[in-house]
Amino acid sequence: MTTKKDLKSIFYPKSVAMVGASNTFGKWGNITYTNLIAGGYKGKIYPINPKDEYVAKIKSYPSLKDVPEPIDLVVIATPANTVADIFKEMKEIGCKGAVVISSGFSEVNEEGKKLEDELIKLAEDGGFAFVGPNTMGISNTHNDMYITAVHARLKKGGVSLIAQSGNLGNQLISWAAAEGIAVGIFCGSGNEAHISCEDYLDFLVEDENTNTILFYMEGVKDGRKFLEKAAESATKKPIIILKGGKTELGGRAAKSHTGAMAGNAAMYKAMCAQTGLVWASTSPELLNLSAAFSNIPLPKGNRVGITTLGGGWGVVTSDACSDYGLEIPPLPKSIVDVIDKVLPPYWNRNNPVDLVGTTDTTAHLTALEEMAKWKDVDAVITLGVLGRSKLIQDMVTSGLKTMDESYHDFLNMVMPQITEYEEYYRKFIIELMTKYEKPIIAVSLTEISGKTVFGDCKAKYKGVHYQNPEQAVMVLAKMYQYYKFLQDKKR
Amino acid sequence: MTTKKDLKSIFYPKSVAMVGASNTFGKWGNITYTNLIAGGYKGKIYPINPKDEYVAKIKSYPSLKDVPEPIDLVVIATPANTVADIFKEMKEIGCKGAVVISSGFSEVNEEGKKLEDELIKLAEDGGFAFVGPNTMGISNTHNDMYITAVHARLKKGGVSLIAQSGNLGNQLISWAAAEGIAVGIFCGSGNEAHISCEDYLDFLVEDENTNTILFYMEGVKDGRKFLEKAAESATKKPIIILKGGKTELGGRAAKSHTGAMAGNAAMYKAMCAQTGLVWASTSPELLNLSAAFSNIPLPKGNRVGITTLGGGWGVVTSDACSDYGLEIPPLPKSIVDVIDKVLPPYWNRNNPVDLVGTTDTTAHLTALEEMAKWKDVDAVITLGVLGRSKLIQDMVTSGLKTMDESYHDFLNMVMPQITEYEEYYRKFIIELMTKYEKPIIAVSLTEISGKTVFGDCKAKYKGVHYQNPEQAVMVLAKMYQYYKFLQDKKR
Repeated sequence: MTTKKDLKSIFYPKSVAMVGASNTFGKWGNITYTNLIAGGYKGKIYPINPKDEYVAKIKSYPSLKDVPEPIDLVVIATPANTVADIFKEMKEIGCKGAVVISSGFSEVNEEGKKLEDELIKLAEDGGFAFVGPNTMGISNTHNDMYITAVHARLKKGGVSLIAQSGNLGNQLISWAAAEGIAVGIFCGSGNEAHISCEDYLDFLVEDENTNTILFYMEGVKDGRKFLEKAAESATKKPIIILKGGKTELGGRAAKSHTGAMAGNAAMYKAMCAQTGLVWASTSPELLNLSAAFSNIPLPKGNRVGITTLGGGWGVVTSDACSDYGLEIPPLPKSIVDVIDKVLPPYWNRNNPVDLVGTTDTTAHLTALEEMAKWKDVDAVITLGVLGRSKLIQDMVTSGLKTMDESYHDFLNMVMPQITEYEEYYRKFIIELMTKYEKPIIAVSLTEISGKTVFGDCKAKYKGVHYQNPEQAVMVLAKMYQYYKFLQDKKR
Repeated sequence: MTTKKDLKSIFYPKSVAMVGASNTFGKWGNITYTNLIAGGYKGKIYPINPKDEYVAKIKSYPSLKDVPEPIDLVVIATPANTVADIFKEMKEIGCKGAVVISSGFSEVNEEGKKLEDELIKLAEDGGFAFVGPNTMGISNTHNDMYITAVHARLKKGGVSLIAQSGNLGNQLISWAAAEGIAVGIFCGSGNEAHISCEDYLDFLVEDENTNTILFYMEGVKDGRKFLEKAAESATKKPIIILKGGKTELGGRAAKSHTGAMAGNAAMYKAMCAQTGLVWASTSPELLNLSAAFSNIPLPKGNRVGITTLGGGWGVVTSDACSDYGLEIPPLPKSIVDVIDKVLPPYWNRNNPVDLVGTTDTTAHLTALEEMAKWKDVDAVITLGVLGRSKLIQDMVTSGLKTMDESYHDFLNMVMPQITEYEEYYRKFIIELMTKYEKPIIAVSLTEISGKTVFGDCKAKYKGVHYQNPEQAVMVLAKMYQYYKFLQDKKR
């Protein structure tokens, strides 16, 4: 059991067989199987179904042994009592890994526990590893491989998520897709009979497509072992944890859900701080943290420069900085002098820089660059410039509805310009992050669906954009904490 | 100055004159004026512009005095040094109120402060009240009247918002519109030279269209007076406050923004608790609280019943309940027996009720009603049933892409059924809230843009739906706190 499990064959298989592949909509063997095909998986797909000649238009085989070519990954969605025999077949033909979607194991009763124990023995004997049982599937966008209940399509990205709750995991994936956060590898770990959180950690730390590791975790079997691994791994890649069951009530619910033991929030948080793990307090935090950790540089200190289209936001953001222990240094005369040239005389001359609602783009850009290159700040938050296009679009719509036709040509020119400018501002943010190696986070209260992460796949950094300043501040604070942890480790 | 100011003429005018109405896109006199027309205002509109014969196709007048009919509200968007003369004209012809958008007053320098002081005298002398100066406008959907920079269209609803930051206020409005939260009355209070927060409070407490009052507040001139009024008003309608400048850093930024003095978060929170004011910790909280307070009944205790499509969410929600001091009573045998009939034998038999991902709608509905009528709970959270349609839509799309044509008729039937069922579930939630007088909050992690509030305008309650369980729990906790305040007051 001490040999390293082969997870690469599970997440990067060249061929997938689906035992229980079905033409019946709603069955697990249909949901996950059609997802695999529709998601554009490039490897070979073999449906195993003794009744139907074709499943979703692909020729099917009565059993694994009938497949004439090698099978890397076997996905199983047949009843619990059939899985042992499938595992035996897998050994015979040399399959390299399994995802057991089937439920009815240790999560239901003692008999199920026995079946599960048998599977462990058979897998060890067969020389392969398996996810689950009772998992809601896995996906890997780097491989265009979607074997999950949720059919959301994700961009390729460095975030990998292991969830000890299939449902929550699938919903998080759907949410990430809607927000434009690229989760590359996902795995609902199910009962973790064979592959445990420690194994996933081992694999993801080595996986070259992963730069940020997320866990939704209710409990681990061997706490000490996991902590040791986590402490070691956190120096290589940030590990962000949403702990379910961190309180008494949550612990009770977790016990009834995955059988994990109740915990204590303070203890878990302390444990995270010691081992450099990043603690997500809530489910939105988990995804927002992942977007930043995987795409922008870490702040090397706790000092923040802020530009804001309107004063009120600067105030709310400053409050959040206070709450999270970030500092907002006063603006030096040298920068005041530069910004004086681009803003009206009554601007506030301090940090946060209130852009007093100006539409002069030179002012936005000058203020942002001054903040980014300012040696006394470690991170920048820019409020309100991105997202303006939605507000202006609404104004133009009113203009076209009410104004004389002679003005329409002009009005029709406005939106392309604004859209182009926002695109430029996005690129400028990324450019500045690369030039000054400081994180810059954009915030707008307008809707930003699908645009939390922006930028070119090939660039060193992408941009991140949140809907409220509090999340931007929370993210910077936790990134700085992680940066400090890394520095301490180096000493 | 002790006479009550006439705010009704400002928020419910029969006619509006816009001094500085302009055909030039981007000018304040164009942005707010086209918004008024495009928004469908039913009263009379008089542009005042000495140069153009028509402004946005409406005949304009050289001055207020030239308008042949009575004017209730005058909106002013001309330079600061012109406003005094306009006020004098207003007195002459008997206008009833003004919104001074013009800036360049106390927010810029001493000279501006003098101009502002003069306006106060002129208004008192003229017998009318004015909003601002330096406001980004007002709106009242009950009157289809939009005089703001933001051109979002809001549903008619009981939430009224006063913001001591025009920019933040306008962004909050845009956000509320995108989320489907109905803000009826909005006012950016600007410099509050004449109408102060206390006055708005007086007005909104009496306004029959307002059932929930929101403030984004940086500072009030007379703290004691405001507190007295707030304490009195909070017994009539919930008052939710987002305080800008509650920390040292925020206070510094607020001083530079509106001149408000720095505060201390703990002191403000304590003040809110004493006076029954509801404290919003962050900008998202402000809007989420408003959706619930204005649409669903208050919980009469801190005990929560939870139904969840998957176990993990139940755990996360339970953790949040612990954090916010809510209780999750164990499920009594009587309810276990009822739910036993509709769920597979391995369900968890406890609260949260894990619906083990069942697609059997009878199970969802039975569990929800059992929770709602259970005498030992005061509020219900239902996780995952609403929002499923997005997930199923994606599955159907994959099905149509991959499956043989013979299955397409069936697949095409799925979505209408699911959509209809979700609609039914929404109605059922509202029905149960009305029947049992308990709040029920829906949560799904999938995207819910524009659907935070759902239901029929005429019903007693509407439904609310958040994207994460933590917000649902926060809202219930603060509603219960307010309920307790009301009970204490009655004693």
